[in-house]
Amino acid sequence: MPELRKDPILGRWIIIAKERGKRPTDFIIDDVPAKGGFCPLCPGNEKTTPPEVHALGDPHRQPDTPGWNLRVVPNKYPALIIEGDLNKEGEGLYDKMNGIGAHEVIVETPNHDETFSNLSLDKMCNVFLAFRDRLVDLGKDPRFKYVMVFKNHGLAAGASLEHSHSQLVALPILPRMIVSELAGCLSYYHYKERCIFCDIIRQETKQQERVVCENSHFIVITPYAPRSPFEMWILPKAHSSLYSTQSQESFEALTAIFSEAMHRLEACIPNVPYNFVLHTSPLRSDPLKHYHWHFEIMPKLTKIAGFEWGSGFYINPTPPEESAKFLREAKI
Amino acid sequence: MPELRKDPILGRWIIIAKERGKRPTDFIIDDVPAKGGFCPLCPGNEKTTPPEVHALGDPHRQPDTPGWNLRVVPNKYPALIIEGDLNKEGEGLYDKMNGIGAHEVIVETPNHDETFSNLSLDKMCNVFLAFRDRLVDLGKDPRFKYVMVFKNHGLAAGASLEHSHSQLVALPILPRMIVSELAGCLSYYHYKERCIFCDIIRQETKQQERVVCENSHFIVITPYAPRSPFEMWILPKAHSSLYSTQSQESFEALTAIFSEAMHRLEACIPNVPYNFVLHTSPLRSDPLKHYHWHFEIMPKLTKIAGFEWGSGFYINPTPPEESAKFLREAKI
Repeated sequence: MPELRKDPILGRWIIIAKERGKRPTDFIIDDVPAKGGFCPLCPGNEKTTPPEVHALGDPHRQPDTPGWNLRVVPNKYPALIIEGDLNKEGEGLYDKMNGIGAHEVIVETPNHDETFSNLSLDKMCNVFLAFRDRLVDLGKDPRFKYVMVFKNHGLAAGASLEHSHSQLVALPILPRMIVSELAGCLSYYHYKERCIFCDIIRQETKQQERVVCENSHFIVITPYAPRSPFEMWILPKAHSSLYSTQSQESFEALTAIFSEAMHRLEACIPNVPYNFVLHTSPLRSDPLKHYHWHFEIMPKLTKIAGFEWGSGFYINPTPPEESAKFLREAKI
Repeated sequence: MPELRKDPILGRWIIIAKERGKRPTDFIIDDVPAKGGFCPLCPGNEKTTPPEVHALGDPHRQPDTPGWNLRVVPNKYPALIIEGDLNKEGEGLYDKMNGIGAHEVIVETPNHDETFSNLSLDKMCNVFLAFRDRLVDLGKDPRFKYVMVFKNHGLAAGASLEHSHSQLVALPILPRMIVSELAGCLSYYHYKERCIFCDIIRQETKQQERVVCENSHFIVITPYAPRSPFEMWILPKAHSSLYSTQSQESFEALTAIFSEAMHRLEACIPNVPYNFVLHTSPLRSDPLKHYHWHFEIMPKLTKIAGFEWGSGFYINPTPPEESAKFLREAKI
């Protein structure tokens, strides 16, 4: 059973994933995702993953057989496991609990050679709808407080399988970053009685310096204080704290703008490794006036080293105004 | 001039290092530190670095000439620059200031092929004394609030030069991580009237499960909630919040235990990439009852990906009790 442990000074939670238990000799310094080898996410290999929890495709197909267009399966090496109780307990001055949660893999396409940025709009839209469906389903489990939806693309960004996939982790505690984000938004709201993200959208629309692209429902900006070159945020223009309650029209507009943003990024930096993370309000929360759901896309172009670890500062060699200009002017 | 920008939601500061200004084509995905090429940190090449600010060696040598055993120089591509005023200002809802600070490189040895863990005790002690001397000197500049001392070793840990060196960055604001750490310690102190690190040392000494090694003045533990496999903390046994006020005897004991810890780590994982960071109280602060200076050593063995970025959680496949056992039993 994995264990959740809390750093008693910073309140930072660590997942001790004992099942992945590594001995010193297991640490190979530069492991590369298998190229051309066996792929557990390819059609025909469905039995090598845990049984699917969600799929789209031929309505007559049996679960865990080919014929799917998108498939969601539990991670074979999960950071957290779904069965059991939290059993919170202390150990002297330390706190721990069982590592209860869900860890799922969204296989975005049956085609091994397709990347997320090159998915057709239909296929990409299905990915965003699958995020919603899993958020709704996992939100029914009262043990979970948050579902973190993210994607790692490329070795430098932490992808360990080549086949295009995103992931989600359902957590029994609200993650520190979301707590900080919610607190920052609430404090601004108390002061101004306005959503800070709505104010950011207003200022960015006026200044235009950091706008990458936009459509009827969404705007893409490079944030004012980005952690990395070419970092982008995708924000719904209308205030909304919940990803899952979007209309079908909004999901289609999200797909169009996300696809455009990814094409612009790839045009600037071909084969860029990147992470994206969905920021939405906690499970089962009512609509919040102070919070605004969005995606953050972080290209992995700089190294996180001692200074960043120690300080929480980031050093970014490219001003977001320049990133936005390159992205806007990219030929796509 | 570099710029400091604040994320308006999280309060996270970003250094926009325009001088390092990178265009899309400058991002080479896997840059490797030059092997065997020209080394600006080697003796004979002193004129290729900015003029030295501190050195140990032949008392008759001229500055910026060979004959040194340790040399401190400003970083040629500094993240922050030393001359100018902060000029704090707003830009709509955003905050920024000039990137004023110091960024120095501590060249630990004239010998290009020596690594930090293999330095003689005398040479390693000089490195720790140089940290103190620079902390004291930079503390005289009232613009600076904190000096972050750290080392990146190995490509994966962000080292861009092969020649063994550590770095320091003097900052005009207290970094977020130190603010959180001080707040966590103070909150514990208010509740218990004891230093949390002193309590950790007591519990670890009693349990022995996570103790790696110790001597008269210092103890090395793997922390209860480590971010990475084989993470180690080096703590003075006697309560002290200030690194710089240590006695000579304490510096010698620190050197002995740090060297032993590094040898144990290298025996477990040869050529391990790692970062270490000195955690000490802010510049010009009085001795604090609630804070305890220490070093944190983080081997770079796992990838930071979307989940960690989004949540602030870390996934660690090796329990610290197992890391400590391997480190204790390593043949050195």
